[in-house]
Amino acid sequence: MDILWINGEYMPLNEGRVSMEERGLLFGEGIYEVIAAYDGAPILMDEHLDRWERSAKGIHLEPKYTREEREEVLHELIRRMGHPRVTLYGQLTRGAARRNHAFPKKTEPLEFWFVRELPPYPDTMFADGVSAVTHPDERWARCWIKATNLLANVLAKQYAAERGAFESILVREDGTVTEASVANFHMVKDGIVYTHPDDGRILAGCKRHMVLQLARDADIQVREERYTIDFLRKADEGFLTSTTINVLPVTKLDTAPIGTGRVGATTRRLMDLTQAEVTRRKLQNTPVTT
Amino acid sequence: MDILWINGEYMPLNEGRVSMEERGLLFGEGIYEVIAAYDGAPILMDEHLDRWERSAKGIHLEPKYTREEREEVLHELIRRMGHPRVTLYGQLTRGAARRNHAFPKKTEPLEFWFVRELPPYPDTMFADGVSAVTHPDERWARCWIKATNLLANVLAKQYAAERGAFESILVREDGTVTEASVANFHMVKDGIVYTHPDDGRILAGCKRHMVLQLARDADIQVREERYTIDFLRKADEGFLTSTTINVLPVTKLDTAPIGTGRVGATTRRLMDLTQAEVTRRKLQNTPVTT
Repeated sequence: MDILWINGEYMPLNEGRVSMEERGLLFGEGIYEVIAAYDGAPILMDEHLDRWERSAKGIHLEPKYTREEREEVLHELIRRMGHPRVTLYGQLTRGAARRNHAFPKKTEPLEFWFVRELPPYPDTMFADGVSAVTHPDERWARCWIKATNLLANVLAKQYAAERGAFESILVREDGTVTEASVANFHMVKDGIVYTHPDDGRILAGCKRHMVLQLARDADIQVREERYTIDFLRKADEGFLTSTTINVLPVTKLDTAPIGTGRVGATTRRLMDLTQAEVTRRKLQNTPVTT
Repeated sequence: MDILWINGEYMPLNEGRVSMEERGLLFGEGIYEVIAAYDGAPILMDEHLDRWERSAKGIHLEPKYTREEREEVLHELIRRMGHPRVTLYGQLTRGAARRNHAFPKKTEPLEFWFVRELPPYPDTMFADGVSAVTHPDERWARCWIKATNLLANVLAKQYAAERGAFESILVREDGTVTEASVANFHMVKDGIVYTHPDDGRILAGCKRHMVLQLARDADIQVREERYTIDFLRKADEGFLTSTTINVLPVTKLDTAPIGTGRVGATTRRLMDLTQAEVTRRKLQNTPVTT
């Protein structure tokens, strides 16, 4: 059973309720994070909680709880869940107030986290890669904020799902490829990894940062620069990074294969390096059972 | 006391609750409408409910209730409230489901409406006009959908409030003026009304449509075309239109007056025409008390 922590209390997730006047519901005025934990060890927790704080600041939200209190809640949720593979979902909203666009003078922010099992993805997805489709990037300007204004992402992901694809690759009006609807996207050409820079127009993932660092450490050249859909159509490889999928190859885009249509050498190497690093971090952070 | 109707039930608004897994809360995945009613008569109800249906279709939401059921609810809320000036706020979301961006296979949409008193705005606002500031238009691409992804609007409105202004006038990267954060904006130059066209980049208001029609009927020239912030800086007059403010003059933009800095002739005429038309519509729709 999924467990919820909300403003200080633990309860089954399905018992959690929020007010009709919650600004998270009326305006989508909130920020969120998703953290994976394996064998009790949350992965990249510091990075996720750093971003949580940046996102909150980005929409002028002052969390009610301290970083230490938040970390305690996450560990307690993982412990109560007692499952080897879980995700922690957390959201912070401005709270309930009489509806009015400008911030209410006095309101208490709502913070909640819930934990649930993270079922493994099918092995074939990683062995064969997944397919993606292109979709216009229709999001707002401040993509660097991990905000709960996710309608553009939802519609793009649904667009992919209806076409039997795993993801939508988002393309701006000027042809720039930004990322995918729920993951960062990267392409490989002549052994070089190309990825959209962290300039505010993407939600720069914690896993993205880790994978790009692993690439650099392994002497794989990384170019964080804008590139276009035309350039992507000539790519040798493509892959996604995110909290829950780590590195996932993309072997087909719209109707055409990417490169040979099979998982490429650079992607495979990054998958292996990432898997090893996640395991290393997990072992480092696994709680000692007494 | 504000009254809520939610999925078939009436209750005090402060007793209304939604699930933590409501997609309206997790993704801002919903659409909404605000309707004003005076002396029991909802104004432009058909237009608002038409847009409700267009917005719902725009995010592939299938309402559970019929148009007739919805109209009955609105009239009942107005009747129960029994106040001469009220607003009806309605929202439709995809419902609660295990969190996943793509649409859940089976979920029941959540529809709710609440009614509350609409206090009159101070007369001085209409006599002297209000001030506005410019702000980048940071919204997503499908502004024509009245969706609850309102973070860009909230931040722009708050930006104005912090500067003692009533509204933010939104300006796209290329200099195009679109509208205000919670109202449509229009400017007047040499007696001609200029306003951004209803091309998907604005939320074309029901009141906007009514006011522009009144202008045309009164032989005031209306140009629905894109114009820039540079052109706006040379305007003679500026005004806002919305459900709750009808026509509100804007007499100052950033640090400079618009035109003479006083309410202009065209704006005043449109205020009078609009007031008369709202009164006419109200009288037409006032329920007969027995």
